Amino acid sequence: MIPRYSRPEMVAIWSPETKFRIWFEIEAHACDAMADLGVIPRENAEAVWKAKDVEFDVARIDEIEAVTKHDVIAFLTHLAEHVGSDEARFVHQGMTSSDVLDTCFNVQLVRASDILIDDMKALLAALKRRAYEHKDTVRIGRSHGIHAEPTTMGLTFARFYAEMDRNLNRLEKARYEIATGAISGAVGTFANIDPAVEEHVCKQLGLEPEPISTQVIPRDRHAAFFAALGVVASSIENIAIEIRHMQRTEVLEAEEFFSAGQKGSSAMPHKRNPVLSENLTGLARLVRMAVVPAMENVALWHERDISHSSVERNIGPDATITLDFALARLTGLVDKLVIYPDNMLANMHKFRGLVMSQRVLLALTQAGVSREDAYKLVQRNAMKVWEEGRDFKTELLADEDVLKALSAAQIEEKFDLGYHTKHVDTIFKRVFGE
Amino acid sequence: MIPRYSRPEMVAIWSPETKFRIWFEIEAHACDAMADLGVIPRENAEAVWKAKDVEFDVARIDEIEAVTKHDVIAFLTHLAEHVGSDEARFVHQGMTSSDVLDTCFNVQLVRASDILIDDMKALLAALKRRAYEHKDTVRIGRSHGIHAEPTTMGLTFARFYAEMDRNLNRLEKARYEIATGAISGAVGTFANIDPAVEEHVCKQLGLEPEPISTQVIPRDRHAAFFAALGVVASSIENIAIEIRHMQRTEVLEAEEFFSAGQKGSSAMPHKRNPVLSENLTGLARLVRMAVVPAMENVALWHERDISHSSVERNIGPDATITLDFALARLTGLVDKLVIYPDNMLANMHKFRGLVMSQRVLLALTQAGVSREDAYKLVQRNAMKVWEEGRDFKTELLADEDVLKALSAAQIEEKFDLGYHTKHVDTIFKRVFGE
Amino acid sequence: MIPRYSRPEMVAIWSPETKFRIWFEIEAHACDAMADLGVIPRENAEAVWKAKDVEFDVARIDEIEAVTKHDVIAFLTHLAEHVGSDEARFVHQGMTSSDVLDTCFNVQLVRASDILIDDMKALLAALKRRAYEHKDTVRIGRSHGIHAEPTTMGLTFARFYAEMDRNLNRLEKARYEIATGAISGAVGTFANIDPAVEEHVCKQLGLEPEPISTQVIPRDRHAAFFAALGVVASSIENIAIEIRHMQRTEVLEAEEFFSAGQKGSSAMPHKRNPVLSENLTGLARLVRMAVVPAMENVALWHERDISHSSVERNIGPDATITLDFALARLTGLVDKLVIYPDNMLANMHKFRGLVMSQRVLLALTQAGVSREDAYKLVQRNAMKVWEEGRDFKTELLADEDVLKALSAAQIEEKFDLGYHTKHVDTIFKRVFGE
Amino acid sequence: MIPRYSRPEMVAIWSPETKFRIWFEIEAHACDAMADLGVIPRENAEAVWKAKDVEFDVARIDEIEAVTKHDVIAFLTHLAEHVGSDEARFVHQGMTSSDVLDTCFNVQLVRASDILIDDMKALLAALKRRAYEHKDTVRIGRSHGIHAEPTTMGLTFARFYAEMDRNLNRLEKARYEIATGAISGAVGTFANIDPAVEEHVCKQLGLEPEPISTQVIPRDRHAAFFAALGVVASSIENIAIEIRHMQRTEVLEAEEFFSAGQKGSSAMPHKRNPVLSENLTGLARLVRMAVVPAMENVALWHERDISHSSVERNIGPDATITLDFALARLTGLVDKLVIYPDNMLANMHKFRGLVMSQRVLLALTQAGVSREDAYKLVQRNAMKVWEEGRDFKTELLADEDVLKALSAAQIEEKFDLGYHTKHVDTIFKRVFGE
Repeated sequence: MIPRYSRPEMVAIWSPETKFRIWFEIEAHACDAMADLGVIPRENAEAVWKAKDVEFDVARIDEIEAVTKHDVIAFLTHLAEHVGSDEARFVHQGMTSSDVLDTCFNVQLVRASDILIDDMKALLAALKRRAYEHKDTVRIGRSHGIHAEPTTMGLTFARFYAEMDRNLNRLEKARYEIATGAISGAVGTFANIDPAVEEHVCKQLGLEPEPISTQVIPRDRHAAFFAALGVVASSIENIAIEIRHMQRTEVLEAEEFFSAGQKGSSAMPHKRNPVLSENLTGLARLVRMAVVPAMENVALWHERDISHSSVERNIGPDATITLDFALARLTGLVDKLVIYPDNMLANMHKFRGLVMSQRVLLALTQAGVSREDAYKLVQRNAMKVWEEGRDFKTELLADEDVLKALSAAQIEEKFDLGYHTKHVDTIFKRVFGE
Repeated sequence: MIPRYSRPEMVAIWSPETKFRIWFEIEAHACDAMADLGVIPRENAEAVWKAKDVEFDVARIDEIEAVTKHDVIAFLTHLAEHVGSDEARFVHQGMTSSDVLDTCFNVQLVRASDILIDDMKALLAALKRRAYEHKDTVRIGRSHGIHAEPTTMGLTFARFYAEMDRNLNRLEKARYEIATGAISGAVGTFANIDPAVEEHVCKQLGLEPEPISTQVIPRDRHAAFFAALGVVASSIENIAIEIRHMQRTEVLEAEEFFSAGQKGSSAMPHKRNPVLSENLTGLARLVRMAVVPAMENVALWHERDISHSSVERNIGPDATITLDFALARLTGLVDKLVIYPDNMLANMHKFRGLVMSQRVLLALTQAGVSREDAYKLVQRNAMKVWEEGRDFKTELLADEDVLKALSAAQIEEKFDLGYHTKHVDTIFKRVFGE
Repeated sequence: MIPRYSRPEMVAIWSPETKFRIWFEIEAHACDAMADLGVIPRENAEAVWKAKDVEFDVARIDEIEAVTKHDVIAFLTHLAEHVGSDEARFVHQGMTSSDVLDTCFNVQLVRASDILIDDMKALLAALKRRAYEHKDTVRIGRSHGIHAEPTTMGLTFARFYAEMDRNLNRLEKARYEIATGAISGAVGTFANIDPAVEEHVCKQLGLEPEPISTQVIPRDRHAAFFAALGVVASSIENIAIEIRHMQRTEVLEAEEFFSAGQKGSSAMPHKRNPVLSENLTGLARLVRMAVVPAMENVALWHERDISHSSVERNIGPDATITLDFALARLTGLVDKLVIYPDNMLANMHKFRGLVMSQRVLLALTQAGVSREDAYKLVQRNAMKVWEEGRDFKTELLADEDVLKALSAAQIEEKFDLGYHTKHVDTIFKRVFGE
Repeated sequence: MIPRYSRPEMVAIWSPETKFRIWFEIEAHACDAMADLGVIPRENAEAVWKAKDVEFDVARIDEIEAVTKHDVIAFLTHLAEHVGSDEARFVHQGMTSSDVLDTCFNVQLVRASDILIDDMKALLAALKRRAYEHKDTVRIGRSHGIHAEPTTMGLTFARFYAEMDRNLNRLEKARYEIATGAISGAVGTFANIDPAVEEHVCKQLGLEPEPISTQVIPRDRHAAFFAALGVVASSIENIAIEIRHMQRTEVLEAEEFFSAGQKGSSAMPHKRNPVLSENLTGLARLVRMAVVPAMENVALWHERDISHSSVERNIGPDATITLDFALARLTGLVDKLVIYPDNMLANMHKFRGLVMSQRVLLALTQAGVSREDAYKLVQRNAMKVWEEGRDFKTELLADEDVLKALSAAQIEEKFDLGYHTKHVDTIFKRVFGE
């Protein structure tokens, strides 16, 4: 996790304070369930809640851990300092450390998912707003970086919306993947603890009980979770690359917002760098790099080994914090992106009408000219545009042979942008359902 | 794709013959839709279906492609050889090559998914059968590769079942991700083709129309698809690693099936190598390596670039063929896995009763012995087992101080395996719902 | 391996015929060494060479393997069909299959390296030629895709040369990594075969004996090998991205060579797509995807497991064939790349002189103007260029306040391109050493 | 970076304090060189060194950066607070931020490499010591996790030594890859700064001047660097997996050192978990995950984009800190690993002599028995061992038919372990050169 690429709400999920708070809740709810079952005295369960509003002292817990070499025991010892040793003596009974650790990790991932889902909704709102704003802003569509046929800026935003809407769905599924808890003991057999305890704790924490665990919650869930984040990150890169292309000097169809006061802006007005979208490109790589290790974590030995742990201590916070930051940065970027419709038109006309050559070719054929002849007609006029900088339509209108096949009005019609935008409403309806 | 790790049905999906067959169907259905719209004559649409039962001549198409340098044009030329040049002249009208290529690729991925889903169901059936067969076969549960507490072989199979059941769900979602088609023209604006054509073709091919495409179908879908395969592969590795551990000489709780006639089996009966599960470990890596490139494919330039194409020509067939083979191999492996219940018991008793030391410790504490004293009592008996190879229960029953806290019957009870298996039915009900 | 992205010489290295030929050589040389040691009769060793010019019958070997289920035994059986059962009875004595398989794999990788090294030298020659050709062809340097300061096309080629020269070095080191062989028996102890056999075989095949093997040659070597290929592939992508950028419609500083006869070129002269460099971008991903599995292959169980085998059957041929093809394609691309110096100048002047604003700013400061005032002077002239399309130098020359600090000649001098190219020779000398 | 998996010396390299110290040195040395060239007054160059012993105030620099939004400018402003605005006015003249940032990053990587190289040497010393200590400690070699033929524990350590010695070499090459600096200006043309400045600064910092840079140092260097770390990490995993296998309950040929006082050790003496080597397995994944993003960083746009920056801010510290920690942890682990030679022998004899069946088979054939008959003879005795737990040698010595071919002494000889260890010295000489 890099502080400069992080936001406090997500960072807080991964703080020791939050972790100990969740541990406390797991233990306290477990005591309640055990009291319900008559396994431990009710008053001991109730006593634990005395620590309900305590802010656990991380430094003190670290101090204890330095002696016990065990984080959960250190926490329990500290908890007893608040609750009273005697009252606390049934806390954690029949449980194993992983019951606490794995359930806590999933609570954190669920909370992280909730933030990411909210981030995504904010991004979708921005994309939708910009899509409608530029629904009819014509620009040239490009395949291979080469001008192809006209499209609109609204369609560009709409396709990013559609892609991110799929990603919202993927995040919701990812959240579902890891929204389970386990309180099942040393090898998951519930030998020392009743399944009812797991059910109660999970219910209180908003989780489903893991149907079958083995000290640990199975890691295919987490692999699927991080894989989903990797897909989302790749889509962020997709938008970032589009913006970087639009801002490059020769294209200049859009610019990242540049506040009036930002230094250097007006002495070198051309030198406004798309640093936010470049940064997003790098952040996408950082999120994506969690995917393979998360998959390598799946194949644990027998009922568990602890190889996954160090990996998750890193990628758990890092991937969610980075993705949260990236989504928020992208939302601001989309929201304030400066669009230059005039430059879009100027670019489209760079090769004065040539992008319409295919339509003219088709029209000639449909007018009965053989494909070969039609090709020659288009070609001889196209070359004048390409080599001498003439205007394609003007040349066509002056070509006797072309005029034999197509009327001037028909030629004019081939250069009508409405031809290309006629289905924009259809597509918007598909994407936005309205 | 490596022939020795492939099965014919999946390979067939990726053959040139299948590809051309799908191309044909896309073109022919598109003609139907255009005839419905009155864009092309009905008889020309009907004429295309003359090629319905033709087996396209791959060599001939390659020959044409060598001249035209364009695969779709080569195919259309060959198609015209069957349908008649004049009758075929409206085929592909208003379409762009990617309309055919991308829709075809998704048809292939959908068919591949169908096979993978069937593979998974077969695997689930095998896992379930073995789970019930060994529901009560007690073995030692292990964390960190170290004996922990008893569990059953049935629970091991049941957890693999639960994991693969989640993977079935992931495969179904992955299939859904890529079950779209696009017939939307050069930059996805439907400038030259009516959206109704796309709708008709998709319906006929069992796809949904892509809500918004840009010559290409957006690649976040494929990234999500291959990511799902990577998770499934990681779960295969998980089962493979378990089998490899069970078969290692010192453990020998299971063996891959070894046919009676297989040479070497009886002269060196110890030398039966878990080569199938080792192979599955490697195959998992091969499937997984498709994930990152598929994610790198998402960020195409503007409306499309073709960088994804070479990647997909490889990972499309390779990842699906390899995963299909791996799932089938794993199903056979699970189905015929030879289980050695006696060795399981022998292993569990390797340190004669020591795995119960924690239960005894707990019992002593619950009987009122201070934690410190209880620890010492367990320790002094445990060390005799560890260092002198004695039997833990025998030692405890002979320890006066232990007997002051626990009766002989109580000590006996701590060694009852039923304590550990009492919730197996509960877990099976969770996993299998029955 | 995708046929369309492969070249015959590299493909041949990975053919069954080549493999069996190498197996034969390993076995025959081993027999020689054993005869030298007096372990087997000289005449038997000599008899093996009867098969020296035999083309082994792959179909026949496959047929035998279908029965024996063992590839090396199948080969030996077939070899005996040529040499005579009796004469061949000492072949492979004391050896284990991996002695043959691993040594053969490394021979193949060495040969593949030799081709890749030659490929790289050809690429370097092309880059060097183009670098000198365009040493003084001025173009604008860009950071963040935004115009920065002038540079030359020759420097661009020179930096690709320097990068690929480092890659040549990496390939040579990669070749060295895997240029070892092992004939050391079941667990690498030479229990059944003398180390002298390994030495002889390795010497004959141009390999070093692996200092310590364990049935297999250690896989850190192969991880390092494939990692090097991944770096080379990333550099290919680097050049490909530059070309794609140069060819995009708005930039058009270069184009991939487009043969006169290639269809579509003149009717839509703007529509020449950089498909080769886009393809190289994808191929780079394919090569790179071998890196992680090769690293996952390192941690084999004890003296060996066979999980690496299926991975290497794939990535061995695929990564080398793809990289060979990519290097050759890139060489052709560089060699014939069409450069447009006029467009380079036109692009540089897109914002009429603004790229010099920083130099002017610096000059004003050096002439004693306070940084704040200098900034204002530059700014007010820059904004006229940016907003009204004026020429920067003209504006400066007409600005009284600027003229108070700088003479007209001094202003003119700031627009001298020679200022930016004065160290090109220095850099060329560093890169090319001449 | 996870604090619990880090060591202070490596962490210090990546602190802001160290970074600013390096920035200072770059700037101060650059001033010296500029003074030598007569570009700036000598006294200004000398004045900069007034800050030589200053500990830069990170909080103050952050405060300035919050205003300037530029890290290098913030630093320079703070530097001027120490040196005096006037004296400092030539600092950074003609340089671009990347000159400082990239050169500093490489200084940090070089220092990190130096630590890693020292770590590796310490590991090699430990491995060598243990190799000689257990040169003759016989244990069973295993392929596929199945007993094969005897080897020695010394050979296991020796092969890890050989592997890590190759890794030492790779680290040294990795260090060489990134030991360059660049002071070449906005697009690397030295337009505003003389190459002599770069040469001087690099020399002072122990770097080579980058032959050709483009504002940034080319990232193929860093890709190669991180790839090398990934290979080293994979080798760490290789050793870790071996230890984990040796410690698993059924094998117990070694244990991670467990201090006498560590709780739980004696009440549950079997429950000593190989947590350090499991942790190393996870750390290896963390280091390895830097490889692909580092390769994705190579293809920057034109003279540079900044997408690599966020990636490197993460992987620079994280990969080096994690690898340093892992190497140190592994060294301690190897150094104190508790070896159980008796258990090694016991394991080898688990199937009482069966591991020698292949030698007996060979001996029978060499004694003239047909391969088929020899097989039957071995088989019938082997099955008694396998099924009835008899001793192989005893059975053979009692088999009349066997005795017809082999004398009792010859049979005894086949069970001589010296046969398997006879080349240990040869191999040690190859590995350790002594």
